[in-house]
Amino acid sequence: MKVKEIAEFLSGELSGDGQAEIGSVGSFTTATEGEITFLEKAGEIPGTNASCVIVPHSFEFPNACTIIKVKNPKLAFAQIAAVLHPPKHRESQIHASAVIDENAKVGTNIFIGAFAFVGAGSEIGDRTHILAGVKVGNDVKIGKDCVILPNVFIEDGCTIGDRVILHSGVIIGADGFGYVRDEDGKYIKFPQIGSVLIEDDVEIGANTCIDRGALGETRIGEGTKIDNLVQVGHNVQIGKRCVIAAQTGISGSVVIEDDCVIGGQVGFGDHARVQSGAVIGSQAGVLPGKIVRPGVWWGTPIQPLDEYKRQNAHVKSIERLKAEVKEIRKLLDDTTAPDKS
Amino acid sequence: MKVKEIAEFLSGELSGDGQAEIGSVGSFTTATEGEITFLEKAGEIPGTNASCVIVPHSFEFPNACTIIKVKNPKLAFAQIAAVLHPPKHRESQIHASAVIDENAKVGTNIFIGAFAFVGAGSEIGDRTHILAGVKVGNDVKIGKDCVILPNVFIEDGCTIGDRVILHSGVIIGADGFGYVRDEDGKYIKFPQIGSVLIEDDVEIGANTCIDRGALGETRIGEGTKIDNLVQVGHNVQIGKRCVIAAQTGISGSVVIEDDCVIGGQVGFGDHARVQSGAVIGSQAGVLPGKIVRPGVWWGTPIQPLDEYKRQNAHVKSIERLKAEVKEIRKLLDDTTAPDKS
Amino acid sequence: MKVKEIAEFLSGELSGDGQAEIGSVGSFTTATEGEITFLEKAGEIPGTNASCVIVPHSFEFPNACTIIKVKNPKLAFAQIAAVLHPPKHRESQIHASAVIDENAKVGTNIFIGAFAFVGAGSEIGDRTHILAGVKVGNDVKIGKDCVILPNVFIEDGCTIGDRVILHSGVIIGADGFGYVRDEDGKYIKFPQIGSVLIEDDVEIGANTCIDRGALGETRIGEGTKIDNLVQVGHNVQIGKRCVIAAQTGISGSVVIEDDCVIGGQVGFGDHARVQSGAVIGSQAGVLPGKIVRPGVWWGTPIQPLDEYKRQNAHVKSIERLKAEVKEIRKLLDDTTAPDKS
Repeated sequence: MKVKEIAEFLSGELSGDGQAEIGSVGSFTTATEGEITFLEKAGEIPGTNASCVIVPHSFEFPNACTIIKVKNPKLAFAQIAAVLHPPKHRESQIHASAVIDENAKVGTNIFIGAFAFVGAGSEIGDRTHILAGVKVGNDVKIGKDCVILPNVFIEDGCTIGDRVILHSGVIIGADGFGYVRDEDGKYIKFPQIGSVLIEDDVEIGANTCIDRGALGETRIGEGTKIDNLVQVGHNVQIGKRCVIAAQTGISGSVVIEDDCVIGGQVGFGDHARVQSGAVIGSQAGVLPGKIVRPGVWWGTPIQPLDEYKRQNAHVKSIERLKAEVKEIRKLLDDTTAPDKS
Repeated sequence: MKVKEIAEFLSGELSGDGQAEIGSVGSFTTATEGEITFLEKAGEIPGTNASCVIVPHSFEFPNACTIIKVKNPKLAFAQIAAVLHPPKHRESQIHASAVIDENAKVGTNIFIGAFAFVGAGSEIGDRTHILAGVKVGNDVKIGKDCVILPNVFIEDGCTIGDRVILHSGVIIGADGFGYVRDEDGKYIKFPQIGSVLIEDDVEIGANTCIDRGALGETRIGEGTKIDNLVQVGHNVQIGKRCVIAAQTGISGSVVIEDDCVIGGQVGFGDHARVQSGAVIGSQAGVLPGKIVRPGVWWGTPIQPLDEYKRQNAHVKSIERLKAEVKEIRKLLDDTTAPDKS
Repeated sequence: MKVKEIAEFLSGELSGDGQAEIGSVGSFTTATEGEITFLEKAGEIPGTNASCVIVPHSFEFPNACTIIKVKNPKLAFAQIAAVLHPPKHRESQIHASAVIDENAKVGTNIFIGAFAFVGAGSEIGDRTHILAGVKVGNDVKIGKDCVILPNVFIEDGCTIGDRVILHSGVIIGADGFGYVRDEDGKYIKFPQIGSVLIEDDVEIGANTCIDRGALGETRIGEGTKIDNLVQVGHNVQIGKRCVIAAQTGISGSVVIEDDCVIGGQVGFGDHARVQSGAVIGSQAGVLPGKIVRPGVWWGTPIQPLDEYKRQNAHVKSIERLKAEVKEIRKLLDDTTAPDKS
């Protein structure tokens, strides 16, 4: 792809050699000839061997190299990367070793890898790729243009939208964690007979677990992205366009509304509710039933970030405070002592 | 099942239409005709379309709808749910693609799914279900009426009791994490040649790992329930009827006695001991070697819950304390200043 | 193996019955006849049924039992354990059910288990064991003498050194977690087209995930050992001989230099750098971009261990401080009150 074509594709302002051929994207420091990279801030000093750099409009080194000025360089870079590095092409196939129930329905131009299993009543949409070792239970619906990576398991009755990516080891629809103690103290399983709905354009990271609803549904909203090793409990409702980083744990019946950003290793007690637009820092802990309003939050139990920081500063000041109190005590003793003499 | 029969099964007190047919359970707010639900507290205002509600004896809206009064409605609900929604029935089979070593012994009425592997010397008890893609090593003993979900791996020499459920992605018997540094600073593997014993009626959540003992055994006691993505280190001893929530990590040689309740994302240092009946809140951290007495605990390092709360309140009061000290200082300066003049 | 031979192998000083036959290792308290065990500290009172005990040179109970004196008993024990309990021997095979692309290259004396898959362009080194259900993508290079346990997935283009152990459920090379928001608030995937390099003698625990680099490489240095359920983000660089305990999460572009020790459930913000030799306690939290100098660290945000402990002590002293301030206030009121009268 010529630099000129890329500039047009990005609706960017080209300066330099529009005829240079670009074959791939690269990072600013390691990109070489034939690669395109980007700068987020205009202030950074150019020092790249890339053939073209996507820069913000405020960029001011016109002769440094071939550049394309755009509003949001990182976004433009991601967009051109998607063109230069399209998702892996796989020739449509159903591998000879795959086991597909005769009552399953598969779409056109699908890819089904070695040792994949698709149960009775399940449906696989057009152009979806089911990679090696994936196990799909019964009555599962998977939409179009999905990529389900090796060794994923999708339990009976779950529904997956279009353009969903499930990374390797993801487990959709395992039983939630709910028990009732009987008179003898034994734990009796609370029914875990609900299902899971993954909406369109969701991406779920490796070894993440999304439990089925106990009675109703666990839902992951459209366009939400979940990292690796995340736990999503039964009946959790996650809205649209949320981002949830690795190893976060979300207990049963938690609601996370649209457009929330959740750091890594955060823990949510059951029935907590995170309102739309809230941002929660890594390792934070949200108490059961807590309502988290929009804003930035951190700590366990979580507090608004400013309060958390102020509190941390207060803790650091205890030592000085103790010294001050000691001094006052001494002063007071000195002041009052003479009166007694 | 008729409401009347359900009332008898639960030894409950029926009021209303005993002839109504119940086909499934549902949640209080979404249940519809033909469904049974439950109310935990008598004070809740009925507003359900369920055909029958299991309620506590203290319930006082006799004409609201068809009800069954019992001592523990949630337990009764779980018990009737187990009848109305029995575990998935699977016709006994050994899938043509499964590989079972000729020196393995399998019981009667078992189910072995596609791409399952059972190694030499292993035994699978009667009526146990080994689902697709499960890998069972050599000399593994699995009891009766177990359900081993897709892609579980059980290492050589491990023992699984009766009625055990291992959810998808569970790994039993991987090497523990133990090394010794040699003179060159290289890490030499400490022997990890022990095994794992999972007792009867244990349920283990998706992608949870139970490491084998280094020299002895890692043991999960009867009736204990472990959630998803939990780490159980080598030689850990977990007692009977414990409940351990998601993403908790238990280091080597920790002992958790019977009837403990452990929240999510808790961390245990090695050789800690949790005494019978202790309850530990989510995200708590237990130091190596710590003895945790019965009671409720929280925080890192863990403290009795009351102390933890009092300490948190103290931290929040630092700001006021600082103001007070400032005021005292001023007062003191004012008091002493005139003396100097 | 005779005790005498073991003493020679360990260059230790034998005292007692050099002719006794040793078949296996055992723990101090449970070892029986024919087993060898060890004592770390000279002060421990012997009370073992082992046929031989490896002890430190300072050990002073010469007649207690047959002993071998060495400099580092635990290391010697690990070394002799490796001889008495060699890694599992498996007859070389390529299981009939395995699918190996015709354009893959496999070495000599390899073991490939049932339902294993090896993609086009991949290479498996001599004597490497690929166990049941492992999925190896395209253009993957795996070195010599590796053991890849069941259901591991290695994505296209990743490189694994020699003598590497990947425990069951490990996922190497899944896409990193990176997105850019577009004008509509939708998350666009940032390119995740780099790779993963696992150097020689690395061991990675069950269900751990090592993401591929976004543009460059994610690297795990020689001799590093990683526990179960750990998350390693895109472009992370981990040095040589590091030890990282279970459930730790390492965000994108973090650098951990050589010889670091990281506890369990630690969280690293992106672009943090841990300098060679640093030790970080469990559940600690490292802020994005933080430089962690050599030394011992703990807490969130992390602090030097001493400061962390002092701060904790300060927090515990708030109650007393409040009492003191109250007392001072009273004293002051008493002192000043008479002046007003």
